[in-house]
Amino acid sequence: MNDIIKLKNPPHISSYYSVVGSHERSGPLGACFDEYSSDDRFGKDSWEKAESEMQRLALSGAIKRGDFKESDIDALLAGDLLNQCVGSSYGLIDFDIPYIGLYGACSTCALSLALGAILYDSGASSACACVTSSHYCASERQFRFPLEYGGQRTPTSQWTVTGAGAFILSDTGHAKIKEIVFGKSVDMGINDINNMGAAMAPACIDTIKRYFKNSNHTIEDFDLILTGDLGFEGSEILKDLLLREGLDIRDKHADCGLMIYDLDAQDKHAGGSGCGCSASVLAGSVLRNFEASTLNDILFIGTGALMSPMTLYQGGTIPSVAHLVHIGR
Amino acid sequence: MNDIIKLKNPPHISSYYSVVGSHERSGPLGACFDEYSSDDRFGKDSWEKAESEMQRLALSGAIKRGDFKESDIDALLAGDLLNQCVGSSYGLIDFDIPYIGLYGACSTCALSLALGAILYDSGASSACACVTSSHYCASERQFRFPLEYGGQRTPTSQWTVTGAGAFILSDTGHAKIKEIVFGKSVDMGINDINNMGAAMAPACIDTIKRYFKNSNHTIEDFDLILTGDLGFEGSEILKDLLLREGLDIRDKHADCGLMIYDLDAQDKHAGGSGCGCSASVLAGSVLRNFEASTLNDILFIGTGALMSPMTLYQGGTIPSVAHLVHIGR
Repeated sequence: MNDIIKLKNPPHISSYYSVVGSHERSGPLGACFDEYSSDDRFGKDSWEKAESEMQRLALSGAIKRGDFKESDIDALLAGDLLNQCVGSSYGLIDFDIPYIGLYGACSTCALSLALGAILYDSGASSACACVTSSHYCASERQFRFPLEYGGQRTPTSQWTVTGAGAFILSDTGHAKIKEIVFGKSVDMGINDINNMGAAMAPACIDTIKRYFKNSNHTIEDFDLILTGDLGFEGSEILKDLLLREGLDIRDKHADCGLMIYDLDAQDKHAGGSGCGCSASVLAGSVLRNFEASTLNDILFIGTGALMSPMTLYQGGTIPSVAHLVHIGR
Repeated sequence: MNDIIKLKNPPHISSYYSVVGSHERSGPLGACFDEYSSDDRFGKDSWEKAESEMQRLALSGAIKRGDFKESDIDALLAGDLLNQCVGSSYGLIDFDIPYIGLYGACSTCALSLALGAILYDSGASSACACVTSSHYCASERQFRFPLEYGGQRTPTSQWTVTGAGAFILSDTGHAKIKEIVFGKSVDMGINDINNMGAAMAPACIDTIKRYFKNSNHTIEDFDLILTGDLGFEGSEILKDLLLREGLDIRDKHADCGLMIYDLDAQDKHAGGSGCGCSASVLAGSVLRNFEASTLNDILFIGTGALMSPMTLYQGGTIPSVAHLVHIGR
């Protein structure tokens, strides 16, 4: 594999749909999202079931909006943060479509788009769907503390987005997936679960450096270099360290975790995170800008922290990964 | 996607390596495995770290045996049963190779071979590695009870294999991955975590039926129809229900979970399971038979149960999936 996979027959992102919770609806992008739940429950009696319901709604919405039938979709690529990825496996059980389960933590949206694009490029798929989600309440209970505990958050901690995004890769659309760089896992010794941005930034730096080292493109060729989700802390580290390497992305950079909330007004500390963050920002906002022709060429780099609570209890540090997808016309 | 993906440029399984624990070493295939630990610890101080070490050993072994260099391998496709798939992310952190995380429960070995083969077929990869693992002690603690509790097992329960397998897909070898069927997730209402075979059999039936409905091949064309891992209970259900559908696989069927242990002598109830079961049986035994020309054409169907303890506590049933890989010459 060259570091950069250039697709010979790149798929279009033919349809997309976003579903979010109440905090995301109240944020700066609130009006962009397709669907929301005012109590984050989506009519279900547990947070985990609510997350699954978001996946179901997101995929149903993307199928409908793209004028597809369920039988047109020949593969689902899906993942989430819950143990054994049950947000996806339960959320998508009603669809009679082959199911490919992924785990890339918060990088899963980018990973699913990358693998889906290769399935299309190879001819194995003519229309596949990529679906990812996260839920704040389910994640807090699983990774940190149950909400009832009322734990205090540190300033570097990120807020897991309650949201899901679904994308259908097929023949027509306003944006294409043109290039892919799969990330290497990187571990620089961070072991603070409340500073995931710092853990993920080095993986993101590695992937971006590999892209620009092996590409004919320069930073100036892109309208946007979009990371998801480094938050405030990780974004600063990313920009600083890339600058030292001679890559100045400061004018082009945005982070899904910083876009989705008003950090101060919504008291969201270092910003959003979770598989549903970049998925909902991409589906809710970024791809609409391709449709409106205000964006033409972007790099989207999904970043994920690949630890578990167990590995941290056992003294482990946090390995991370960042997958890059070049979305253009 | 047609139900069957036929690869135009199918990869060979160029190298493979198996690592197991003490119970697997004492079983009927014991002498076939490449490496084992007599105390299941692999020199580590936790079961989770032991599982990661098995992944590291398996990949290192496959790279070495195939006369590859680490830099020849351009992608890792890996997964396991631990929360957030940390067996893989920690086990493979030392390799400077792009990392693609998968979750398919016990179907992950087949899923990784299927996706790796498509990466190769598409030209995105020229040599990728597929690595999966499971560890009995880590799994029991996570999914059922800590070993110290001394919980009794029901007759239908399966024993999670302590093992890992690594496979390198590239240009030369004795066996090729020729066709793929990605499984649909199927949930027939089973909610007994101690009867995973019954939960997984319907997904396996669905995948096998779809293969033979859409293929020019008949059951007679294959030397072996290998499932991994239905165990005793699931295998009986599979054979019975397929027979009612007019597909008699009884003379061709074997199950990795039944091959790896002597069920009675080793008191292993319904047989082995876990991501490491089919991976170690395939790498330790089945592929050696291709090398020895005693096997020429097989269907390998990896089966996985996609629940978590949490979803069962919340009253959920067990969705399952089965991915099929046709391995031939």
